[in-house]
Amino acid sequence: MKYSVLLILTLCLGCQQTARKDISSAADLYPQDFLQQVEKLRDMALTDDTAYQLIESLTTEVGPRLGGSPADAAAVTWAMDKFKSMDFDKISLEPVTFRRWVRGPETAEIIAPFPQPLKITALGRSMPTPKEGITGEIAHFATIEDLEAATDDQVQGKIVYISNKMLRKKDGSGYGPAVKARSMTAKVAAEKGGIGAIIRSIGTDSHRGPHTGATRYQEGESTLPVGALSNVDADLLDNVLKRNKPVTVRYTLGSDWGDEYTSYNVIGDIVGREKPDEYVIIGGHLDSWDLGTGAIDDASGCGITMATASLIKQHIGQPRRTIRVILWANEEYGLFGARAYHAAHQHEMNKHIIGAESDFGAGRIYALASRADVASMPVFEAMAELLKPLDIPYVGNKGYSGPDLIPMRRAGMAVAGLYQDGTSYFDYHHTPEDTLDKVIPADIAQNVAVWVVFTALAAEYAGDFGFGLSD
Amino acid sequence: MKYSVLLILTLCLGCQQTARKDISSAADLYPQDFLQQVEKLRDMALTDDTAYQLIESLTTEVGPRLGGSPADAAAVTWAMDKFKSMDFDKISLEPVTFRRWVRGPETAEIIAPFPQPLKITALGRSMPTPKEGITGEIAHFATIEDLEAATDDQVQGKIVYISNKMLRKKDGSGYGPAVKARSMTAKVAAEKGGIGAIIRSIGTDSHRGPHTGATRYQEGESTLPVGALSNVDADLLDNVLKRNKPVTVRYTLGSDWGDEYTSYNVIGDIVGREKPDEYVIIGGHLDSWDLGTGAIDDASGCGITMATASLIKQHIGQPRRTIRVILWANEEYGLFGARAYHAAHQHEMNKHIIGAESDFGAGRIYALASRADVASMPVFEAMAELLKPLDIPYVGNKGYSGPDLIPMRRAGMAVAGLYQDGTSYFDYHHTPEDTLDKVIPADIAQNVAVWVVFTALAAEYAGDFGFGLSD
Repeated sequence: MKYSVLLILTLCLGCQQTARKDISSAADLYPQDFLQQVEKLRDMALTDDTAYQLIESLTTEVGPRLGGSPADAAAVTWAMDKFKSMDFDKISLEPVTFRRWVRGPETAEIIAPFPQPLKITALGRSMPTPKEGITGEIAHFATIEDLEAATDDQVQGKIVYISNKMLRKKDGSGYGPAVKARSMTAKVAAEKGGIGAIIRSIGTDSHRGPHTGATRYQEGESTLPVGALSNVDADLLDNVLKRNKPVTVRYTLGSDWGDEYTSYNVIGDIVGREKPDEYVIIGGHLDSWDLGTGAIDDASGCGITMATASLIKQHIGQPRRTIRVILWANEEYGLFGARAYHAAHQHEMNKHIIGAESDFGAGRIYALASRADVASMPVFEAMAELLKPLDIPYVGNKGYSGPDLIPMRRAGMAVAGLYQDGTSYFDYHHTPEDTLDKVIPADIAQNVAVWVVFTALAAEYAGDFGFGLSD
Repeated sequence: MKYSVLLILTLCLGCQQTARKDISSAADLYPQDFLQQVEKLRDMALTDDTAYQLIESLTTEVGPRLGGSPADAAAVTWAMDKFKSMDFDKISLEPVTFRRWVRGPETAEIIAPFPQPLKITALGRSMPTPKEGITGEIAHFATIEDLEAATDDQVQGKIVYISNKMLRKKDGSGYGPAVKARSMTAKVAAEKGGIGAIIRSIGTDSHRGPHTGATRYQEGESTLPVGALSNVDADLLDNVLKRNKPVTVRYTLGSDWGDEYTSYNVIGDIVGREKPDEYVIIGGHLDSWDLGTGAIDDASGCGITMATASLIKQHIGQPRRTIRVILWANEEYGLFGARAYHAAHQHEMNKHIIGAESDFGAGRIYALASRADVASMPVFEAMAELLKPLDIPYVGNKGYSGPDLIPMRRAGMAVAGLYQDGTSYFDYHHTPEDTLDKVIPADIAQNVAVWVVFTALAAEYAGDFGFGLSD
């Protein structure tokens, strides 16, 4: 996943208990036998491996699937085939066009005072270095704010290096403050006359695989080829810098922009029996970064939500309104799928009753939140009642969801947050270590159990969740 | 470190309590004030950071130092400088000549049925593939024994893949049974008409960095270019193979043999006040594999033993006999330093009173063992008495030490084993993850405290530990 600045702001507001009106009981909203069916499916889902098998399949049979790569097309075919074999009612492809960004060879090394190699990876959207690389003295700043405050003299002719460390937090809130270095270092360094830009990986691990992730790049703006060192290599560079001698580094990044490419949002519908043209939107993004196999980011989200919709159809039957699973195209370097879907469905945004995305890894869910009209709070109370045996509380109406819902949320759609434990998420996020072994089958099954409760109740609810909500 | 087959046999015999004669007390062997000095230094060492700073320095200022690489020479200079600055009495270089083995580019990928990249690294001493790589169908065997039992038909024209998994054990005893695949796959596969050889990494982790390590290669024998997949990539290949379709893989290894090179064993002596020409041998190996910075393998062993000798001189004074710290050259791909030292000192082997090597990572020591004449058992009892407060028992006279002592042990020298907890050692061993962050300062200090007790008492002991012991 990738956070936009707006999402980060939302993150900071999250998890607060909101005041709410007296609620009706779940029995007023849903027939008793429906609630019993959901309860039964919730329990069954806890030992069901449909989602895990989908994750295994996508990572094994497709693997890394960067937007615009050959594996992007393979992933689209995979998703179509899976939706078909899982008996979804309607499957559609919606085109998503973007300019490709392709990774190239990448190397880094300390030249002086102590020659040794460093592990680097290009940030997504970075321009390439010249073939022979960029060689220069390091200008070291602890944070992006320190770089912003620096004079041009401190930066001119140098390779800027930002060493800020991300903090480990259950809700991932260490990411927001740290990730600004990933977005902004190339731009700010270029503006001050720097010749190169390197950051410490935005991640909480101590591995040799650096974290990629998109950097800001807009035509007409100054920028520089920018890469991330692994946290271990950043530790090493920090220790070299502590010797207080000038430190010279060389790095090479071969990544570059390519031609236009059309991928697809792959959409699977379980069509509503009463309101087929109203949608509860769930899903994950189908693309991944290229370094790992995209198991936690975001085969997990795809598997969890595909399994959820399928299990509901199989064990409860057609919902009142349509459950739409969207497997988003190219989330990672620009939310292209999200923007294309919003553009194509703008005229019927108000038919998108509520949305949620699973894009925070493979950890267990620990809380449910909403961002919906207060009139719909009884629905969340009903969900919370069904989630009690899983120890998952409802934590209020200032919730957030995944990045692919940003355009629709801005347009006024209600969202739900099914918050996952992200304590170890940023150990693997956007690195070569994002692989199947990091996915624990029982944790994935717990996710599906929770998504079943949310999705079934949202799709069956006779009312709506409000529209035109402020962003 | 690298185990020889003999060492593995010895491993299997280790850790058994041996019968021993009634012992004298420590007070009969050593003056009381000496024992008090050792006790004091032991306690001081527990918070001393000399060893950790040496490890930090070697990994930061030299980094990866494969035998024959430019960093090999830098490491020799580093070691000389450190011995000097630590006030060793005598510093000497002894030449160690070997043929260089140089790593080249390395790639691997599944071609069919599911194209995706794999992480591979050449095993040390492997020959290179052709530039375009080797492409072929996988012939999968669970173990090297299964390969040995296979018919030529099963192997001919195929790339052999051995998927055996190493087991995690505190004493590292999972290594012996697993590592035969690393030594033998290329030879056995070649003899049966295979065109390539790949193994699962010999390691206990779930990381993307494959484990290198030496493979058997002797002129005149059949062999093949052989690489190890990371455990994670081996998991992936195993999952692909479970689909029961033919699996085609391509891999490229650029590593090859180069010219002759002369490196050095770097030797620092704390010269004995009474018996300067009798030696207690301690040390670690100065070279490392090239993938990490060789922090646990074996900057740790170098740092621990250099600090030990230095602290003894500083706080207790000149020992009765010489404490010789040997930083061994090119252990990793052939025990070259060990063999050169033995060859050069063959005539005075009996002056090498006892030896121990620290080459099992950065974990805490949990036991002391010996392999010495039974007449010297009271010395080990005295050591055990001083190690009691650290909860370190003496576990008998069937002990083993590090690989660099193999030639001298075979010649009859007594050895001691200061056994380190290796539970996580094979998560990092020979991989890119062998870096400073895996070294915990307090654990290193604990090692030094134990080495101080062993080394001081061994060097001060008026008797000897026997010579001409059976191997």
